[in-house]
Amino acid sequence: MSAETPRFLKACRGETVDRAPVWMMRQAGRYLDEYRAVREKAGSFLDLCRTPDLCVEVTMQPIRRFAFDASIVFSDIMIPADAMGAEVSFVPGKGPVIGNPIRDAAGVDALISPEPEAACPYVFETIRLLRIELGETPLIGFVAAPWTLYCYMVEGGGSKNYEEAMTMLHGNPELAQRLLEKIVEYGAKHAIAEIKAGAQVLQLFDTWAVLLSHADYLRFALPAVNEVFRRVRAAVGPDVPFIYFAKGTSGVLPYLNQVECDVLSIDWQLDIARARQELGDDVVLQGNLDPLALLAGPKPTAEHTQRILDAAGGQKHVMNLGHGILPKTPIASVEALCETVRNWKA
Amino acid sequence: MSAETPRFLKACRGETVDRAPVWMMRQAGRYLDEYRAVREKAGSFLDLCRTPDLCVEVTMQPIRRFAFDASIVFSDIMIPADAMGAEVSFVPGKGPVIGNPIRDAAGVDALISPEPEAACPYVFETIRLLRIELGETPLIGFVAAPWTLYCYMVEGGGSKNYEEAMTMLHGNPELAQRLLEKIVEYGAKHAIAEIKAGAQVLQLFDTWAVLLSHADYLRFALPAVNEVFRRVRAAVGPDVPFIYFAKGTSGVLPYLNQVECDVLSIDWQLDIARARQELGDDVVLQGNLDPLALLAGPKPTAEHTQRILDAAGGQKHVMNLGHGILPKTPIASVEALCETVRNWKA
Repeated sequence: MSAETPRFLKACRGETVDRAPVWMMRQAGRYLDEYRAVREKAGSFLDLCRTPDLCVEVTMQPIRRFAFDASIVFSDIMIPADAMGAEVSFVPGKGPVIGNPIRDAAGVDALISPEPEAACPYVFETIRLLRIELGETPLIGFVAAPWTLYCYMVEGGGSKNYEEAMTMLHGNPELAQRLLEKIVEYGAKHAIAEIKAGAQVLQLFDTWAVLLSHADYLRFALPAVNEVFRRVRAAVGPDVPFIYFAKGTSGVLPYLNQVECDVLSIDWQLDIARARQELGDDVVLQGNLDPLALLAGPKPTAEHTQRILDAAGGQKHVMNLGHGILPKTPIASVEALCETVRNWKA
Repeated sequence: MSAETPRFLKACRGETVDRAPVWMMRQAGRYLDEYRAVREKAGSFLDLCRTPDLCVEVTMQPIRRFAFDASIVFSDIMIPADAMGAEVSFVPGKGPVIGNPIRDAAGVDALISPEPEAACPYVFETIRLLRIELGETPLIGFVAAPWTLYCYMVEGGGSKNYEEAMTMLHGNPELAQRLLEKIVEYGAKHAIAEIKAGAQVLQLFDTWAVLLSHADYLRFALPAVNEVFRRVRAAVGPDVPFIYFAKGTSGVLPYLNQVECDVLSIDWQLDIARARQELGDDVVLQGNLDPLALLAGPKPTAEHTQRILDAAGGQKHVMNLGHGILPKTPIASVEALCETVRNWKA
């Protein structure tokens, strides 16, 4: 076993690295034949999430194929909602559905905050198995940011405008706040359990931050994110890096320094050089390749990757996409991404 | 007839006004009973767009009910695509569909650039009738920004990720550029014809700018917008204000000063005070009320409206939503918006 700290962990901590580490959001996914093969034999998507051996297998697939610098445990942001008492299912072609959308005080009060190891032992068993399997490759655990999980729980699933979620926020902000607090409570416990099981980094996903005005982002979403990070930090100590991913947060860019994390993962619209300028030299940035560029093949992928590496400058940067990889992505594009990262010189 | 210039035109030109003018994107729409009644008797949505008497009626409905400071001709951003030879239809619950998505050189070359008055006379007839009907209320004409129309034409309709549109952009940028140029050519002619028929202001809608990285926005979307504005300016002279609306462009905020328009219409995420700070005192800003706040009723609508009016400060501001009004919006919310604007004091 090498004594060298993996470059992904070094980069997350802002230490000097030989090159930017690279991994991809949703790297265990449908663009891989071997993932689809496991997915088919697993039964439902939830069955897959609940079977540690299969979760380990699909988590390892992209590591074996591309030797990414980081691994992320295969699970789903809806698993904590399920643990809290939301009736979660996954409808093929539609995504997550909540059978009992949370839209009133009774619904909020009925949510529970169980012990994560009792409620969803398969997540933590997967992590324990992965740490053995992965060797030197660091493992990321994750939860949804509270606002994003709130959106699914109130709306009852994915949506274009999240009209129910937004109407509760605007019409009954006290109730919205209570639901956010419940999500913070269980979410922090879930994240702590992931780290105690062996996850070395924590990422929060805040996909639906994009729905909020800057004022509502600062009032509702950001404090909830920080409350999760504070609780986890208090439980796990200073050594675990925290990553915050949000989509469409260029509108709140000047406030992102207030997120109490080590790494800010940015979408593909923002110029990473401008993010650096706005946020200062201390922050580590993750991203921000356009996932659609990969669809067009290896040549545009390499060009876009090169541009981002040049703009980011090789340090305090984790190469990644600006959002999850798309199912139709050619393998050759992922190879081009990895090769460009590995060949890049300052 | 009063000699006083309407406050909407004064505000668009950056002149001092007694209060911010107010109108709403998609103000002629499904949230109004009287619109739904016309829509039902009209046949298809395209039939409605092609019948000047009905277009005049639905354009006038929100003016009669709320006395907005501006009117926008009822039409659709897909009408120019139809004029260019795309097979446009509207599928209820799904939106626009293009029967012959434009995905290769033959498709691009087959597009035509007819005389607008010959291709879609109903648009210009509607405008001529409206100018009589409207009296002092100014009339806005519009077209889609080239990039946004490109998205629909290549994709074949609305989409989550616009994978076909983005794949052509990344994989064959020369062809993408040729298609954008064709859209610029007809779009500018269409806009000029709207103004010659009587539209007093031009608004470009760039909803799908949000899909682009800052680099691609600067390379493809922004130059195409400016090319339309330049051609129209050359044809109609200096007196017609130009408005540019884009959604999710906070990521390119520092570059929006490069848009050759008089008014920048911003989405609801961005802090309007920050937009002012970043873009300078000369620009007129339009927006940026969260359309979801209106769903929650008059009280949150009034609060959000008040906050924006306070932040914008009453001058060089056109009060509007950050995106189109939603079909489920209560009338009382629109009334609260208007009342708050009319009662606002600096």
